[in-house]
Amino acid sequence: MERLLIEPFYVMKVLERAKELEREGRKIIHFEVGEPDLPVPEIVKEKALEALKRTELRYTETAGIPPLREKIAEYYERTYGVKVNPEQVIVTPGSSIGLLAVLKVVSERIGSVAYPDPGYPCYKNMLKFLKADSEPVNVEAEEEFKVKPEKLKTKAVVINSPSNPTGVVYTKEELQKISEKAFVISDEIYHGLTYGRGAPSVLEVTDNAVVVSGFSKFFLMTGWRVGWLIVPDWMVKDVVAILQNVAISAPTLSQIAALACFEEECLEELRRNVETFRKRKDLMLSGLKKLGFRIPAHPQGAFYIFADASAFTEDSFSFAFKVLEETGVAITPGRDFGYNKTERFVRFSFCTDERNIEEGLDRLYVFLR
Amino acid sequence: MERLLIEPFYVMKVLERAKELEREGRKIIHFEVGEPDLPVPEIVKEKALEALKRTELRYTETAGIPPLREKIAEYYERTYGVKVNPEQVIVTPGSSIGLLAVLKVVSERIGSVAYPDPGYPCYKNMLKFLKADSEPVNVEAEEEFKVKPEKLKTKAVVINSPSNPTGVVYTKEELQKISEKAFVISDEIYHGLTYGRGAPSVLEVTDNAVVVSGFSKFFLMTGWRVGWLIVPDWMVKDVVAILQNVAISAPTLSQIAALACFEEECLEELRRNVETFRKRKDLMLSGLKKLGFRIPAHPQGAFYIFADASAFTEDSFSFAFKVLEETGVAITPGRDFGYNKTERFVRFSFCTDERNIEEGLDRLYVFLR
Repeated sequence: MERLLIEPFYVMKVLERAKELEREGRKIIHFEVGEPDLPVPEIVKEKALEALKRTELRYTETAGIPPLREKIAEYYERTYGVKVNPEQVIVTPGSSIGLLAVLKVVSERIGSVAYPDPGYPCYKNMLKFLKADSEPVNVEAEEEFKVKPEKLKTKAVVINSPSNPTGVVYTKEELQKISEKAFVISDEIYHGLTYGRGAPSVLEVTDNAVVVSGFSKFFLMTGWRVGWLIVPDWMVKDVVAILQNVAISAPTLSQIAALACFEEECLEELRRNVETFRKRKDLMLSGLKKLGFRIPAHPQGAFYIFADASAFTEDSFSFAFKVLEETGVAITPGRDFGYNKTERFVRFSFCTDERNIEEGLDRLYVFLR
Repeated sequence: MERLLIEPFYVMKVLERAKELEREGRKIIHFEVGEPDLPVPEIVKEKALEALKRTELRYTETAGIPPLREKIAEYYERTYGVKVNPEQVIVTPGSSIGLLAVLKVVSERIGSVAYPDPGYPCYKNMLKFLKADSEPVNVEAEEEFKVKPEKLKTKAVVINSPSNPTGVVYTKEELQKISEKAFVISDEIYHGLTYGRGAPSVLEVTDNAVVVSGFSKFFLMTGWRVGWLIVPDWMVKDVVAILQNVAISAPTLSQIAALACFEEECLEELRRNVETFRKRKDLMLSGLKKLGFRIPAHPQGAFYIFADASAFTEDSFSFAFKVLEETGVAITPGRDFGYNKTERFVRFSFCTDERNIEEGLDRLYVFLR
């Protein structure tokens, strides 16, 4: 069988098999999905309902509706104390396509792009899709899986903080040092979901960097498909011209609904959700450790735990399927995140409630014993 | 000033200036936009309202929700008498990103891709974005701006029928002959909007071709951002893996709402709209001819008239701006559609009501006299 142009995510195979088992009547505990399970705040839905009744949903400007660009810019001032011009904010139909556009511009205008390995697989896949020069930077468990500036040989780098799959958060000092070595594309999609001090934005250390973010994690609006970019002035026209061609504009109703995200009432509800995630994280973390998983980096953000399963296997891909078949617990094999020592790792996601986490841990206990 | 990586659409400059003039209080007649102005059928909105109240909008499968894939497949059987397996239908967040994914797969798996010049500018732009081998095929006014199979030297070709900017419709025989020479990517986004016999789908002449289409033209759902692809079996996995990476999934609410499009009541309303467009087309066509524009190909579909303005100018870009400044009528310069003799052409769109068309024609009369 010929290989695909872009490797599919192995987790999709896990999910596929999990769904088959569910159709056969088994109860599956989902520790594999990276989608928050909490409901979107009522105020967001109300905003959408009202707009749906009132307006026709036409194309918007490619860069997004001006009030949303303004609110996002304000949010950065309020949250990070940085000045962002609304003209630098580009609303995208999900953060993925925004990332693709940015990777294109950076690879053409600046040069080769490095990405963390292990890391979110789309970085590598998109750079391959674009036929762009790129290279992985190995990040090591012993160094909290963080990109070390001295290892960077490219002119640009993708940083993901809080990180998928490890949940680690870069400090301001770390971002500073990296941005002195390379142009930073900062994937901040998990911002807002942090369990210690907040995650600093790359914009706190430099103006000449890109932020990729969106409404799908902290703001819970996954299926609404709306994200944003913050890019330096010199990049705006290139990015917008690309998005004009490949996306036209983000879904209009989702853009309008997203305006409600910045209401104080909504932000408060979302912050309370972070406490829910924190409790789940603590429960899962201590449970996995008791079971014998080694957790080299405790998550400080996002909703994942990247666990070393060396005590049980050297082939976490087969391990994930064996666990699924025998316990009904779905987990993501490390292989999805790169080549650097990922074969011993699996990713656990805590996008499910405490009862399910307890049950999943219990099933794993019986299996691993 | 450095050139952009992808050329922006010149029509955006027209639109920008038109908006400035509007802010200054002038009434602009918009013959430049390619977005239908009629309201989306009530039943579509109702479906969305109900879903918004009832469900959380999570990510869907990358290829789209199964009932929508099934309804689209059925629609092809009903409309064109062709058998489509729902597995071949891939729902996309707008047709543009679907086209990008398909161009990638075709250029890698089959070879160089030809595209019509003049034609929709995104074909060329996307192929450039992908660093894919490609070449324009000149289409000539004297040949109804149609791609002639004997001119094809590439293994693949993009055909657009009904076409933007000319509105011409390829016959089944023409599609047959082209598909014998090259793999066809058939951009059928304007299907449904035809004013004579309907436009045949490429699937009526071959199974081994791609259809790019969506809900933004005939179905009027522009800002909802939902389109579809129909691809041969061998292409499904590659396309889905790409879309998984660059788009995740189409907006969930829009996918659910789009289900209502296939209700007979909705289709009837949409068919009545075609009569509205037909009247506008007849009015604009005869008006432009009286004014001295030459129309080498009468539109048989879509909502554009590609008019030869040689009687007035050899530089339709300056002409478009002069017309805008002096008459307040916004039109699209031919340059947006390629390099083959486009400097003498302008595109008129009839996405505005008959009163505006009459007023626009009248203003042009005064200006050109």
